[in-house]
Amino acid sequence: MITAIIGIGLIGGSFALSLRDNNISNTILGVDNSDINRKKALELGLVDRMVTIEEAIECADLIVIATPVDSIPILSVKLLNKISKQQIVMDMGSIKSELSEIIALHPNRDRYVATHPMWGTEHSGPESAVKGAFTGRTVVICDKELSAEDALATVVDMYVKIGMRPKYMSSEEQDMHSAYISHISHITSFALALTVLEKEREEEHIFDLAGGGFESTVRLAKSSPKTWVPILSQNKYNILEVLREHIHQLQIFRKLLEKDDIKGLTDIMTKANTITRILK
Amino acid sequence: MITAIIGIGLIGGSFALSLRDNNISNTILGVDNSDINRKKALELGLVDRMVTIEEAIECADLIVIATPVDSIPILSVKLLNKISKQQIVMDMGSIKSELSEIIALHPNRDRYVATHPMWGTEHSGPESAVKGAFTGRTVVICDKELSAEDALATVVDMYVKIGMRPKYMSSEEQDMHSAYISHISHITSFALALTVLEKEREEEHIFDLAGGGFESTVRLAKSSPKTWVPILSQNKYNILEVLREHIHQLQIFRKLLEKDDIKGLTDIMTKANTITRILK
Repeated sequence: MITAIIGIGLIGGSFALSLRDNNISNTILGVDNSDINRKKALELGLVDRMVTIEEAIECADLIVIATPVDSIPILSVKLLNKISKQQIVMDMGSIKSELSEIIALHPNRDRYVATHPMWGTEHSGPESAVKGAFTGRTVVICDKELSAEDALATVVDMYVKIGMRPKYMSSEEQDMHSAYISHISHITSFALALTVLEKEREEEHIFDLAGGGFESTVRLAKSSPKTWVPILSQNKYNILEVLREHIHQLQIFRKLLEKDDIKGLTDIMTKANTITRILK
Repeated sequence: MITAIIGIGLIGGSFALSLRDNNISNTILGVDNSDINRKKALELGLVDRMVTIEEAIECADLIVIATPVDSIPILSVKLLNKISKQQIVMDMGSIKSELSEIIALHPNRDRYVATHPMWGTEHSGPESAVKGAFTGRTVVICDKELSAEDALATVVDMYVKIGMRPKYMSSEEQDMHSAYISHISHITSFALALTVLEKEREEEHIFDLAGGGFESTVRLAKSSPKTWVPILSQNKYNILEVLREHIHQLQIFRKLLEKDDIKGLTDIMTKANTITRILK
């Protein structure tokens, strides 16, 4: 199978490594509009060749979109306009509602598989690509009934081979659950970094006193705005809802602490502890 | 040197391991008011013997308090009341203002060294003790001018031997900086867990969709209320101030997103990114 990956950054680059390590694709082509990324992807051996998008459409059995989410809907239509009924297009973006609306009535819709592998780090660019990235994680496959059986089977089989657990839901469900579980963590982390930068004017103290706790909670604040502004923006209404709840929860903490309500604080922390049971 | 550690949990237990691994103490005694902890500490070989507090005062050159912060002021006075001018008492708690006020005029104040090693995990109890825990981290030493030279030198030397960087400040400064950098991370994480538990009623989705990002941000929400309620409560005013700022930062996110202000979102995320430069 010849695979072309559009966008050889953190996600596209790591996916290329997974395909290679699992002998899924005998040729991996890369497409990227940045000169620097094209050069790095080749140097790092992430892909066999860097090609133009036209060349990718001409040669590849599977075309993978791994670009920021705001570019995916338009790019999807352009690709679906030109592929044959034997080719498959898939994306790895974390937002699906707009995409699914834009391609809904396209005559080649059945050649498209919309996926969201639940993995990422705070880094970006081809140099951040890591081996074994997706193993053991869940991949959300959206609106599977709108993909042709063979296209869906190829994509699911590939994800299973790299060690992911497929989970099926509609685009709307996926966007809501992603806001509730994944996107809110990023906002929390960005806001925590800003809080500390605002209150703690002495940078030396931040460096000296940052224990493991602060570092892990603030890690996502290193994430690229180029990736995250489009995600927040495209998932606006779900995110606003969960953000309202998050602010409310912080206000509860504030009020209990103001009133010296030891029992109340103990109760909400004990409730928060139950996240352990769910996570493992 | 004979060391007695009061409270053989995460911090006390890990400290015992560090003392042993660095040949700092030839005898390590443990004191704990929980039968279960006493048994586990012995089974795990964290201490040589479990003793009563009276026995600890009688035998130990150095008495280390590693109990929850609300118990430290009273315990400190009881210990200072009974020790000789050759013995040293130190604590490892993360809040100091009340403690420093309570022991301020004690005739044995100079035998006391107030410390806060910047390390911890979300776990608790002797079974959570880990080797090499403190290495490479900062230890805050408070009000050093109030400790006798020999007591200070013994404690600082011990921390340096286990690989920590000493940093000196007043109790008030330490409580403020700890609120700004360490304590707020815990509240953020607890509030994030509560938000997800509130919005995401389907537990299966939390388990399936929790990527690395969510897990690292929510990790601290597994922390024990027994440890954290006293910390929040004793550092109330600093924490309320930083909490107010944190809620304000989240409200800025919300407003920018409501107005679709792409530039504004990009700007604040770019500012948050600068935390990277400070942390490394």
